[in-house]
Amino acid sequence: MVTTQERGNITQESCLSRQVLDLIADKWTALVFYALERGCTRSAELLRTIEGVSQKMLSQTLRDLERNGLVCRTVYPTVPPSVEYGLTPLGETLREPIHALGAWAEEHLVEVTEAREAYEERQRQFVTA
Amino acid sequence: MVTTQERGNITQESCLSRQVLDLIADKWTALVFYALERGCTRSAELLRTIEGVSQKMLSQTLRDLERNGLVCRTVYPTVPPSVEYGLTPLGETLREPIHALGAWAEEHLVEVTEAREAYEERQRQFVTA
Repeated sequence: MVTTQERGNITQESCLSRQVLDLIADKWTALVFYALERGCTRSAELLRTIEGVSQKMLSQTLRDLERNGLVCRTVYPTVPPSVEYGLTPLGETLREPIHALGAWAEEHLVEVTEAREAYEERQRQFVTA
Repeated sequence: MVTTQERGNITQESCLSRQVLDLIADKWTALVFYALERGCTRSAELLRTIEGVSQKMLSQTLRDLERNGLVCRTVYPTVPPSVEYGLTPLGETLREPIHALGAWAEEHLVEVTEAREAYEERQRQFVTA
């Protein structure tokens, strides 16, 4: 049962939407979604595909996503047991907002790069002035 | 100048879209956007509004957003000087994708909460089995 108070205001820590936002507004969450979509299902494949993620961070991200119902973890009774990850139906509904972030990044990377170069140029001028 | 190679693949660290995603798929970035929209323009107001953010994390987030052209910082020559933050036109274009994440959080928080309760129940059963 979710009360009106718990819905509250997204900038407040007690607000449930804020807790969900903390989970989904996260680069590792986004990158796990991208890698799962590309057909990576095992932990070792995800680790190889998502450059820069540590084993610990990957495990924690997958556990948080599983705990919150976005990712399902299936254990196959092979020897040794094999584990596969995939999006749940709830996780599927988050694909579009995550793609919108990725699309924004792709679409605006030239402007972001130019802004960064201009910022660094201003910093250099400030230092040498 | 952005080459095709630098556009590359979003899961690779050398890919520029990945670097932009790392910046925007971030809870503090999202919360700064929400607070700025609500009319908070000064560092002290942002710090008060965004529960759980440290002064250091807020400063770093604002600096990263400014450096990448999403937030502008205006210094007024009062005594002492006052500083105001706001979204740039480029930052304005990111409002919609960030709102889509917040809307997802709001829309699905009941399902996420239920999933979390079910997960914790399974963990309890596993421990006591």
